[in-house]
Amino acid sequence: MNVWYTEEHTPGVRLSMKIEQHLYSGQSEFQKIDVLQTTEFGKLLTLDGLVMLTEKDEFIYHDMIVHVPMATNPNIKKVLVIGAGDGGTVRELTKYETIEQIDMVEIDKMVVDVCQEFIPLTASKLTDPRVNLFFEDGLKFVRTKENEYDLIIVDSTDPFGPGEGLFTKEFYGNCYNALNEDGILVNQHESPFYAEYALSMQRAHNRIVEFFPNCHVYQAHIPTYPSGHWLFGFASKKFDPIKDLDVAAWNALDLKTKYYNTEIHVGSFALPNYVKEQLEDAE
Amino acid sequence: MNVWYTEEHTPGVRLSMKIEQHLYSGQSEFQKIDVLQTTEFGKLLTLDGLVMLTEKDEFIYHDMIVHVPMATNPNIKKVLVIGAGDGGTVRELTKYETIEQIDMVEIDKMVVDVCQEFIPLTASKLTDPRVNLFFEDGLKFVRTKENEYDLIIVDSTDPFGPGEGLFTKEFYGNCYNALNEDGILVNQHESPFYAEYALSMQRAHNRIVEFFPNCHVYQAHIPTYPSGHWLFGFASKKFDPIKDLDVAAWNALDLKTKYYNTEIHVGSFALPNYVKEQLEDAE
Amino acid sequence: MNVWYTEEHTPGVRLSMKIEQHLYSGQSEFQKIDVLQTTEFGKLLTLDGLVMLTEKDEFIYHDMIVHVPMATNPNIKKVLVIGAGDGGTVRELTKYETIEQIDMVEIDKMVVDVCQEFIPLTASKLTDPRVNLFFEDGLKFVRTKENEYDLIIVDSTDPFGPGEGLFTKEFYGNCYNALNEDGILVNQHESPFYAEYALSMQRAHNRIVEFFPNCHVYQAHIPTYPSGHWLFGFASKKFDPIKDLDVAAWNALDLKTKYYNTEIHVGSFALPNYVKEQLEDAE
Amino acid sequence: MNVWYTEEHTPGVRLSMKIEQHLYSGQSEFQKIDVLQTTEFGKLLTLDGLVMLTEKDEFIYHDMIVHVPMATNPNIKKVLVIGAGDGGTVRELTKYETIEQIDMVEIDKMVVDVCQEFIPLTASKLTDPRVNLFFEDGLKFVRTKENEYDLIIVDSTDPFGPGEGLFTKEFYGNCYNALNEDGILVNQHESPFYAEYALSMQRAHNRIVEFFPNCHVYQAHIPTYPSGHWLFGFASKKFDPIKDLDVAAWNALDLKTKYYNTEIHVGSFALPNYVKEQLEDAE
Repeated sequence: MNVWYTEEHTPGVRLSMKIEQHLYSGQSEFQKIDVLQTTEFGKLLTLDGLVMLTEKDEFIYHDMIVHVPMATNPNIKKVLVIGAGDGGTVRELTKYETIEQIDMVEIDKMVVDVCQEFIPLTASKLTDPRVNLFFEDGLKFVRTKENEYDLIIVDSTDPFGPGEGLFTKEFYGNCYNALNEDGILVNQHESPFYAEYALSMQRAHNRIVEFFPNCHVYQAHIPTYPSGHWLFGFASKKFDPIKDLDVAAWNALDLKTKYYNTEIHVGSFALPNYVKEQLEDAE
Repeated sequence: MNVWYTEEHTPGVRLSMKIEQHLYSGQSEFQKIDVLQTTEFGKLLTLDGLVMLTEKDEFIYHDMIVHVPMATNPNIKKVLVIGAGDGGTVRELTKYETIEQIDMVEIDKMVVDVCQEFIPLTASKLTDPRVNLFFEDGLKFVRTKENEYDLIIVDSTDPFGPGEGLFTKEFYGNCYNALNEDGILVNQHESPFYAEYALSMQRAHNRIVEFFPNCHVYQAHIPTYPSGHWLFGFASKKFDPIKDLDVAAWNALDLKTKYYNTEIHVGSFALPNYVKEQLEDAE
Repeated sequence: MNVWYTEEHTPGVRLSMKIEQHLYSGQSEFQKIDVLQTTEFGKLLTLDGLVMLTEKDEFIYHDMIVHVPMATNPNIKKVLVIGAGDGGTVRELTKYETIEQIDMVEIDKMVVDVCQEFIPLTASKLTDPRVNLFFEDGLKFVRTKENEYDLIIVDSTDPFGPGEGLFTKEFYGNCYNALNEDGILVNQHESPFYAEYALSMQRAHNRIVEFFPNCHVYQAHIPTYPSGHWLFGFASKKFDPIKDLDVAAWNALDLKTKYYNTEIHVGSFALPNYVKEQLEDAE
Repeated sequence: MNVWYTEEHTPGVRLSMKIEQHLYSGQSEFQKIDVLQTTEFGKLLTLDGLVMLTEKDEFIYHDMIVHVPMATNPNIKKVLVIGAGDGGTVRELTKYETIEQIDMVEIDKMVVDVCQEFIPLTASKLTDPRVNLFFEDGLKFVRTKENEYDLIIVDSTDPFGPGEGLFTKEFYGNCYNALNEDGILVNQHESPFYAEYALSMQRAHNRIVEFFPNCHVYQAHIPTYPSGHWLFGFASKKFDPIKDLDVAAWNALDLKTKYYNTEIHVGSFALPNYVKEQLEDAE
């Protein structure tokens, strides 16, 4: 079957994946949810027709959004995850025995249900006893919290559609308040390469630096995301992701990771000149 | 005009670029050469239908293939460049006043002619008086050299077609001999993400480690190459690309670069675990 | 969801249909069977990845393969249908109360099962009491019959894969024998426009004219088939499809047809000059 | 080079042609003009990105738009052609020695210039001494003519963009006046298969029947046009295209045609039931 899924990254660039089978298609209250079996990437999850994850490269994203903050502060015990309905972020968090509580707030229960049925690779640890699932608006949830979390991970969709509120100034301010004094905020931070994404990235950065004294941006290469060059934001009240990294402590945990290691932790904060300039322009 | 160029990265993945105009098409003795005006990437050069470079992201490749060795050993004076008919590698090399001689060996004169006419962005410095152009087989050229160069850069096509010989054991051995005792060999090293490219990468690595005492691999994100995750090999007789990096010296040169800086120099050698394993398997 | 099915009609031509949902995918003993929901064409049935029918234009094919012979000889009572697992040909035949028996021989039971579940538009009349379903090789089935049928309709796939035997000289000879003296053979006859299809068409024509005294070719426009210009073969022992057409008799039946009428019956035998030349070359 | 031109026939259907070379691209005062070398269809002319003709199937269109009226009235001497900048319609007209004058009115001189340079297959007869080229608006040109022409051929683009005026009531009324009492109007009449084209076709038909006592529609199969099923309008003051067809006279001319013959002339007026219904609805 010559069937291809195509994502238009810009009006002049398309990435296409060959499809073996369309496993699921549904419309939730918030968005269209599809799971497709691809030839190259295993299963593909799309929301409103845009790539969320593929089984082949999700490990890069989830390693980098979780292990960077966890290796910076090994004492993280209470974590809030916003979005992340596929479960991959929670899966990586549950590898840490020291974590006591994971609150996950996903607006769309159907995403979780679909991933539990079709993509156990990412969703299998959502049943961990430390995980509390809240199916509500992350923006509202975080408003009610104060001085509670060691780590907030914002694992959102792009800043249009349901994910839009998770890129606002109000949201980042509420995250600041919901974090305790050791608190770290990590968020998916869009991409610097194509103009439209770079603008989203600059806007997010501009809003985060208003609240947090320590703001850093790090990168990973995620082949199925637009341009593949993807950024994460690291903001904290007191931790520095490089100086405070405890290499020996993290390695002593002996976690199995396919992408992350403590050298790449450090290396990922070294940004190309043009990205540094984009960030400086945004500050 | 709804006209698109598509490269098949694997039988299940395609990257497509919208085309505004087909500026040039020709058949040389060695390969088909095309220059296309794209909507997103400026001009696109293809050889035998495969992406060689685009104006939008060539700076990443050329920064990383040139400045990493040059910052490691600021005393490099005599350089051999193999392939690189587009001129981008030479353009970056000519930024160093300390370089005295650049021998560039490109098998296909037509590539140089076409790039000089259509892609001055990369080709404009091929007329620098320090540059000697040799239109011959790099494999044969290097056989005749001994103890001559401080740096050899192998800026080849993929290891099929005209570029095949530049991935052989014999070739790497001859490069070793052509280098003096300070010599550094840098080569484009394919990609770890898709299986077929990973295999080429492992083969190249396996052959290089036989000759050079210091072998390292570093990475960059090049959006228009398959998976975007691209590797370079750094092999030398005595230099270590991290320990010997002289940050102050390089920064004192005050070169303008859009991607490279000395932090990314170091960061680029931090590889994901799965790539480290591929390299260990190959050794 | 930006998902498209593409059929390559020649190495230089592709027709693509937007897909809403992949309703079914299965592998039978003989071929891969898929049903897809398209945006423009309703449901699409493919065998081994090639278009068999779409709900939007199947009426053209089925009208023309059935009503042309039926209007030529209103006394047809016993019909053999070979292939046609989707049921569309049988659906049109069952409109004639005068038909007493329809033997349908489809090699692949799974095609029938899938169409009965997913494409009732064509398959709904397979349960007519006059229809006998035989799931076996049409080539073998017809070998055992002599002087039995008034009409044989060969509604086959293209002459590669399971349908290959239905384009052989042996098969057409056996059809001749299986027909009584009033017998008519109608077959899908490929297309004159693209070279590869024209060759199949000429081969089929060449083999049929060896056996039947009256051989004619007629055409219809089927938008989802390669080039859209499609041919049917009409071969008989004594009937002429134009001279023997009884316009009044057919119109008196008052059948509802979306494509066929008695003027188009006549008009469809008027072929373009280049097609006439192809047929003459083949004779 | 894996480069493809794609025309979107509807939001759910695309036809793609492989491109060898982009021969010409220009912007006239009226539209974007491109000539591309395709793998399957020879040269392709597009206006504003839409297929106008290909060398492989233009003969079908030009045969049917010219020979149907010419065979109906062999005494045609003075012809007005509107649009048709590629020259194919004029090429067919010049085959008739009996024609004394061909006035061709094409709004866009650049189309003619480009076709004369790149597509001599259609444009070569524009230099015939009987041809007068007028580069002006056909709508305005025809307003000034009365009782002058034996035949008007409207060989326009689709009824959006520059061709829009050629589908208006005013235009058809002016054509009626510009024709003498023997006058015939033939126009490209869009397609019945896809909804949007069918609507254009019905609108055109509705406007023509207001003026002409004899209105007929005939069809041809043009593989590179949307759905391939294409219609032409035949309207006249006194001639009937079937009853007045003089088969012997036309055949005596011994013209070489690849598609047209007098049987297909008659056959092309036999329309499918669903098209007849569309036309009746429009009347």
